[in-house]
Amino acid sequence: MRLRNKPWAKEKIASYPQYVAPNPEQYKGKWHELFGNDHPLHIEIGTGKGQFIVGMAKANPHINYIGIERYPSVIVSALDKLIENDLPNLRLLNVNAKDLERYFAKGDVERIYLNFSDPWPKKRHEKRRLTYKSFLQLYENILVDGGEIHFKTDNQGLFEYSLVSFSQYGLLLQYVSLDLHNSDFEGNIMTEYEEKFSAKGSRIYRCEVKYPNDKK
Amino acid sequence: MRLRNKPWAKEKIASYPQYVAPNPEQYKGKWHELFGNDHPLHIEIGTGKGQFIVGMAKANPHINYIGIERYPSVIVSALDKLIENDLPNLRLLNVNAKDLERYFAKGDVERIYLNFSDPWPKKRHEKRRLTYKSFLQLYENILVDGGEIHFKTDNQGLFEYSLVSFSQYGLLLQYVSLDLHNSDFEGNIMTEYEEKFSAKGSRIYRCEVKYPNDKK
Repeated sequence: MRLRNKPWAKEKIASYPQYVAPNPEQYKGKWHELFGNDHPLHIEIGTGKGQFIVGMAKANPHINYIGIERYPSVIVSALDKLIENDLPNLRLLNVNAKDLERYFAKGDVERIYLNFSDPWPKKRHEKRRLTYKSFLQLYENILVDGGEIHFKTDNQGLFEYSLVSFSQYGLLLQYVSLDLHNSDFEGNIMTEYEEKFSAKGSRIYRCEVKYPNDKK
Repeated sequence: MRLRNKPWAKEKIASYPQYVAPNPEQYKGKWHELFGNDHPLHIEIGTGKGQFIVGMAKANPHINYIGIERYPSVIVSALDKLIENDLPNLRLLNVNAKDLERYFAKGDVERIYLNFSDPWPKKRHEKRRLTYKSFLQLYENILVDGGEIHFKTDNQGLFEYSLVSFSQYGLLLQYVSLDLHNSDFEGNIMTEYEEKFSAKGSRIYRCEVKYPNDKK
């Protein structure tokens, strides 16, 4: 994603603490207090301009959502959508995915969405891919037992890599589509990127994987 | 595959017992006696007209191969290739895959190839797909521990189904290509079908999966 410099972004984010939680450490293990209910929590890592997570939150009022995006100049676009829509079941976090364990305790999250993550195609950058084993471990540390990752991308190499990485880590493949937009999958909510690149003819790959329920 | 009626096929097969083993039950647990060595044994299920298995046997003289094909009118084409090439490390079996355990004991086979298997796209025919769980169990009963399945197909639906079926059965995904002919995979030997359909622009999907070494 191209990053425009927006020097005012941090200030704008800080002025909407009701949408972008300013001290997320305080909710670790008790996000239900923030949302005021015990609905399941789904998070998106790399939420970008927010079209996906806003669409999901609108479509599923009985699920709580948190969109995580580290770039202030990007997350402000998601913030604009939230200001416009005022969804009680959606919050944003302007933090780095590497630090997830600072903000979430084991069992806080039921599902993680990864959408069009940076493919980091060079082998020497493998550890930066959000489906690398150290990230799968990190996700396990905040997910419920049997928690899920729902992943979509138009990057063939990243999808191939991720299928193998998931399997080698011990995750179960529950669903796979090798051409999402020509499949019978219902209720797909597109990201901004997905709209743009599928219109150009890119295939979208999607899968759902699950952590074991009874991992020792 | 279109089947032409060849009333003479069975007779021709019977007249080449050195290529198409007539009583394969006798080699169960001792195929090395037939080949006269202890090389690993790889089998192809649904060997069709034989271009793949003949190519593999030529390229890998220190591996023994058995091509399995149930239709006499099809396997005669593979037989013709074997008559022409006389490969000491290749035999054919004119039997049904359902009966594999009659001919192979646990540990006889190191690797199974499935190439362009019938997709049986209707849900009610799921059990006929060669990657259905009952077939995965059957393969486990003849493979070594840690044995492998190498699978390729141009059928997107069958490939999606198979990736999930492999994972749910507990197999480990070791390699996947979502566009084999535009990948860096080396040494691909094409089937007759693969040549024809990839020339028409079909994508070829390929994966390698492995049974656990220490399954209880």
